[in-house]
Amino acid sequence: MFVLNSQLVDETLFIGEFPLCTALLMNNKLYPWVVLVPKLHDVTEIMDLETQERITLMEEIALASKVMKNTYWPDKLNIASLGNNVPQLHIHIIARFKTDDIWPEPVWGKGFKPYSEQGRQEALEVLRREFSKMEGFQAVANMP
Amino acid sequence: MFVLNSQLVDETLFIGEFPLCTALLMNNKLYPWVVLVPKLHDVTEIMDLETQERITLMEEIALASKVMKNTYWPDKLNIASLGNNVPQLHIHIIARFKTDDIWPEPVWGKGFKPYSEQGRQEALEVLRREFSKMEGFQAVANMP
Repeated sequence: MFVLNSQLVDETLFIGEFPLCTALLMNNKLYPWVVLVPKLHDVTEIMDLETQERITLMEEIALASKVMKNTYWPDKLNIASLGNNVPQLHIHIIARFKTDDIWPEPVWGKGFKPYSEQGRQEALEVLRREFSKMEGFQAVANMP
Repeated sequence: MFVLNSQLVDETLFIGEFPLCTALLMNNKLYPWVVLVPKLHDVTEIMDLETQERITLMEEIALASKVMKNTYWPDKLNIASLGNNVPQLHIHIIARFKTDDIWPEPVWGKGFKPYSEQGRQEALEVLRREFSKMEGFQAVANMP
């Protein structure tokens, strides 16, 4: 059974669901940053997925990338599966700008500022609207 | 026409070729670290690939991951497409250990020590042997 890792519960906000992945907003206003988590039990590496699951994951990464491009118009997307701290397989998709504070460094371990209540609502609203344009996505209202 | 980015030429060693990607060894003995570069002209984001190219890329990432697991038995793989410094699309696949110097931090910008001549030959030999077990891989002797 899929249970979202407790650190991801603490650090993210629920956006909605693709067929394979839950889409989460990292609660860090420093960078537009979403996380895709395949709703599978006990998977830590992309190579452990079945071939069809990997294909679906890749398409959902591409759709989420499109959302980030359409929403934020970043200079570059950073996409990564690290998992050194949180072993549950999750994919970071981060909109990066040449003007952000730490460009060109990667964002991990480089500061964390939660959204204000208003900022959070605005970010979730625009992301739910853009994600909902993507095939198969559902902006479900409750956490799974 | 595909031309490998000059920084990747400088920092990597050629292992061989998948159908879509060139496989390179990062010339950094601190971490076992390979890079896959799709042999395509002027692509910077995964989302810019055609659907079939993305599927092939995902399978080559899985095969390279298997090589890294079989060769180094890491605690975790770190897989990433960043490109903040080198815009040409390239995928990092890095074998990480809880005992490595900077665990659990990501490796980028955290030191770079080129292999010795002997270390380089040994690493390329074992990686070419393991990659050559993967379907479609060719340990071509010369840079494309």
